[in-house]
Amino acid sequence: MNYDQLLSKRVSRMDVNILREILKSASRPGIISLAGGIPAPESFPTDIIAALTTTVLKTYGASALQYGPTEGFYPLREAVSHFIRKKGIMARPDDVQITSGSQGALDAIGKILISKGDKVAIESPTYLGALHAFNPYEPEYVRIEADEDGPIPEKLERLLESHKIKFIYLVPTFQNPTGNTISLKRRKEIADVICRQNALLVEDDPYSDLRYQGEDIIPIQTLATDHVIYLGTFSKILAPGLRVGYCLAPKAIKKWMIIAKQGIDLHTGSLSQAIASFYLTEGYIDDHLPLILNFYKPRLAAMLEGLEAYFPSGFSWSRPEGGMFVWVKGPEGLDMGRIHDEAFKENIAFVPGRYFHIGHREGLETMRLNFTMHDEKTIRNALHLLADILERNVSAGFHDQRVTSFSYA
Amino acid sequence: MNYDQLLSKRVSRMDVNILREILKSASRPGIISLAGGIPAPESFPTDIIAALTTTVLKTYGASALQYGPTEGFYPLREAVSHFIRKKGIMARPDDVQITSGSQGALDAIGKILISKGDKVAIESPTYLGALHAFNPYEPEYVRIEADEDGPIPEKLERLLESHKIKFIYLVPTFQNPTGNTISLKRRKEIADVICRQNALLVEDDPYSDLRYQGEDIIPIQTLATDHVIYLGTFSKILAPGLRVGYCLAPKAIKKWMIIAKQGIDLHTGSLSQAIASFYLTEGYIDDHLPLILNFYKPRLAAMLEGLEAYFPSGFSWSRPEGGMFVWVKGPEGLDMGRIHDEAFKENIAFVPGRYFHIGHREGLETMRLNFTMHDEKTIRNALHLLADILERNVSAGFHDQRVTSFSYA
Repeated sequence: MNYDQLLSKRVSRMDVNILREILKSASRPGIISLAGGIPAPESFPTDIIAALTTTVLKTYGASALQYGPTEGFYPLREAVSHFIRKKGIMARPDDVQITSGSQGALDAIGKILISKGDKVAIESPTYLGALHAFNPYEPEYVRIEADEDGPIPEKLERLLESHKIKFIYLVPTFQNPTGNTISLKRRKEIADVICRQNALLVEDDPYSDLRYQGEDIIPIQTLATDHVIYLGTFSKILAPGLRVGYCLAPKAIKKWMIIAKQGIDLHTGSLSQAIASFYLTEGYIDDHLPLILNFYKPRLAAMLEGLEAYFPSGFSWSRPEGGMFVWVKGPEGLDMGRIHDEAFKENIAFVPGRYFHIGHREGLETMRLNFTMHDEKTIRNALHLLADILERNVSAGFHDQRVTSFSYA
Repeated sequence: MNYDQLLSKRVSRMDVNILREILKSASRPGIISLAGGIPAPESFPTDIIAALTTTVLKTYGASALQYGPTEGFYPLREAVSHFIRKKGIMARPDDVQITSGSQGALDAIGKILISKGDKVAIESPTYLGALHAFNPYEPEYVRIEADEDGPIPEKLERLLESHKIKFIYLVPTFQNPTGNTISLKRRKEIADVICRQNALLVEDDPYSDLRYQGEDIIPIQTLATDHVIYLGTFSKILAPGLRVGYCLAPKAIKKWMIIAKQGIDLHTGSLSQAIASFYLTEGYIDDHLPLILNFYKPRLAAMLEGLEAYFPSGFSWSRPEGGMFVWVKGPEGLDMGRIHDEAFKENIAFVPGRYFHIGHREGLETMRLNFTMHDEKTIRNALHLLADILERNVSAGFHDQRVTSFSYA
């Protein structure tokens, strides 16, 4: 039977996620992987979750296992509305929609907002998972010009004036892949632009709770509430395997997101939602989140120190105060794809930065390094080895290298 | 801000689920609801799930809380491949894809198969949740002519010859809403037609494990394996709040379903999957499923007896051997919407059958009755009251009644 003729037109936009293939290779035993994009399992409050499950089933009994409302489990919506108040977000429980991770929200957003050919404004590099959620709805991407502080407000304004943009997608805090954070000043300017231009922003905020130093910066949502769909998640502060996220959206948008979610998965898992709810309301998060931060903080420090100590001149990198990633930029002409292949032979993995870009040959000289999955010593050793490989390549000259293409099993 | 201008074109196909509104009203305290479409919470193995959670976290620790593969948790895929062998389905663990309930599979199927205007062949009445999953992808529905034994093979064949059908959607066993089951003979004929016409069938099978009497009938999947996407779920044999289902599809289809799922929700909840896995492998299902069947069996019997005892002449109904629903047909001209409104005032709820039909004025004289949510006595009392209302309406004559429209809060 010829199945290809049955496929929808939109599958032409749905690529195999190459990043996923890289991560699969990187998980091979013996590999020290700085490629990952996931929290360390040691950071999960496994015992707390075991205890909370018992509490949930004692408290709610079978109703924690029953079908539930698409909007989410009310006590969790209530708990989230309290939790995000610390971020400066004022929302009633009814404003909070529970999603199946942030991914579930991104998919629903794509479904209700993007018609074929609609324009979505994004940074490049940006979070690939968002593009994978949006792609099946066949958008065109328009790139927002940015510097180290984030999108440049004047350029954003010009872009909104000259294009009909359905929405802007940003990860303002400890961005994946760069680790960059948009400054408060810049957030205010962006909020002004968005309000003035009557634009809609999807503010994806999975990492802001993972701040190891410095001061919290308020979400853009607090500065332009009617113009922002805000996404949060329990994946980094509790456990990703529960698949629980949350979303705040203007009422008229939220209505459609819920209708969409009815068709997508009816509702997010009831037991997971109830566990997340008690995690917040019983104060477990107050004890556990500091442990997560103490766990990751020295890993980030080790990475920044290792880069400083070992990496050759001509390389620069982001200096995030939180999150999970550091972004490294090599001298122009360097092909990190080739470096990756060499490093892989020496059992070190990372993600070449070009996979996070929308332009085909963009970001060839960049790499994303994750610091959450290994201890300080391992991170230092890996960076030392990686630095040697870079050193070799830089001194040998690399300007005439062809762009390599990956072939992962 | 005008949010409407931001919405995608496809939202015009995404109605508020009226059934959901009916069910919301029916859940008002004091209402005896035969409207529901959900399992009784008393049927959930709450204690077993509590114990299994402990086992899961002891056995797998943090990895039961970590991100997992999009295809699903391997031990669960393995357990499902054994479980469905009892239904005659031969599949390796690698053939099994875990989904976020059957709804998650239906959405992914819509996404990868339906381009705007593509034709999907369905029964009418059919399961509304499937239409809600497919609608955003903008299909056209073509109706398969059916009798009490299910789709009529000759008519199906003619339909496949005369239309370019992307896929056929059927719930062959204890269908929602009718409770009807396609006979083995008919299944064989349908399988022949599908193979001969090189067609694809989505076989949605959430209810076949809920058989209270009679003999199991093999899925059409076993008769036309290369032409069937088969959907199963843990919602009726374990607990719907875990949101775990499974899917078998031809390899070339499965590949795209997994790519789609990456964008939709990355993967189904890890903890839920691990619980479901132990539920099967540790044999809990073998003890618990008979309890569920014993629990529902007298309820179905009470409903069939009540209909026989109380309902006026001129009414007929399905006589399912399992599932959750009985379908009642009144004399032509009767508007069950109006009956519903009257019954609601007397604190009885059901779902008027027209909501399960694709034609606007189709099925006015039909109703869906659920028997899983109340004990035998309550079912009998509700049917008695309902019968009185029907009696009143039938003797008063009803042929000139206008079609009512619902207005739920």
